[in-house]
Amino acid sequence: MGTSGPPTQLDPPLNARPGGRSARVRDAVLTAVYEELAEVGYPRLTVDNVANRAGVHKTTVYRRWGSVDVILVDALHRTTADGWRAPDTGTVEGDLVAVTTEIARTFGEAHERAIPSALVAAAFQSPLAAEAMSAFYAARQHAAAELVVRGVDRGELPRAVDPVEVVRAACGPLFYRIFITREPVDTATARRCALAALAAARAGVI
Amino acid sequence: MGTSGPPTQLDPPLNARPGGRSARVRDAVLTAVYEELAEVGYPRLTVDNVANRAGVHKTTVYRRWGSVDVILVDALHRTTADGWRAPDTGTVEGDLVAVTTEIARTFGEAHERAIPSALVAAAFQSPLAAEAMSAFYAARQHAAAELVVRGVDRGELPRAVDPVEVVRAACGPLFYRIFITREPVDTATARRCALAALAAARAGVI
Repeated sequence: MGTSGPPTQLDPPLNARPGGRSARVRDAVLTAVYEELAEVGYPRLTVDNVANRAGVHKTTVYRRWGSVDVILVDALHRTTADGWRAPDTGTVEGDLVAVTTEIARTFGEAHERAIPSALVAAAFQSPLAAEAMSAFYAARQHAAAELVVRGVDRGELPRAVDPVEVVRAACGPLFYRIFITREPVDTATARRCALAALAAARAGVI
Repeated sequence: MGTSGPPTQLDPPLNARPGGRSARVRDAVLTAVYEELAEVGYPRLTVDNVANRAGVHKTTVYRRWGSVDVILVDALHRTTADGWRAPDTGTVEGDLVAVTTEIARTFGEAHERAIPSALVAAAFQSPLAAEAMSAFYAARQHAAAELVVRGVDRGELPRAVDPVEVVRAACGPLFYRIFITREPVDTATARRCALAALAAARAGVI
């Protein structure tokens, strides 16, 4: 894995206009790497199989990304930059419950869970994937913290709260059940986790 | 992996007296499977290498356990039954901070972290390991919940709290940082996680 040659006349320049062939190839390859990862797991992920699944010639994939790790990191960066925004229901409780409920729903269904679970698993085996995952969660936590800031502005929470810490307190116990203790989560669990984090925030502890 | 023959005269009966050859072999093999796992990771774990590291003939290991998964599960069961008890400092806050601090210390140092991290990673790849890990955490949470029960008995927490849920609320955000978002944890983080869980418990939310 990792052979790469010089570009040929047949290949359009990288970073071509959005919607051009280069963007379509990237789209197909980044979608394929997630699907392939969910199906076979990181240890058996290969550039050749990702290229096959994407319907893109493997030489093109090797030249552009070089290795499965680089494809995976590119896919994670694309997901990180997907413009996810915190829900805005009008109350901090409604917003935080919406976030934890989204997590419980995503990981509660086998089909929905396959790709994110495979990504969490891959982070244990690839330092590059681990770094990209960490950046993904940092971005998501930062975006979700916006709902805490709005709650503070509305006077629902004390000024001194650490917005990201409230997000961690709400989401942490859910991820812990899903990936560490492997206990079931449902919408009631999700709600309780959000309320617990808000109680701690109101008590001035986080 | 998985060949096994009938016992021979050279092998002592399984479940021989503690301290006998059978117990020493088990000890060596279960210690070796953790060390080997931490060193090479689950995908490259083999019965032969575990046997080599333990200094036990591989035929003996195949006959007794049959596969690396069975060795790993046996090791996890031994760890689960190690008699771990919740700390008893005299206050629920002291006890819960002691538990979260132990987690932060264990996973804060590369040397201490190697085996438990490798076990969490293995659970993503082996359903048998995942089940044994789940049983391990269920037992640990149950044992730790004792400190919440004592706190309730001393009148430090409301009668209605769910003791295991308080443990999850305290420990979840730590494991989340360590294994999902891959953010650093220290004793201040550990203390804050314990205090947040207690605030939620006092507020009657968990």
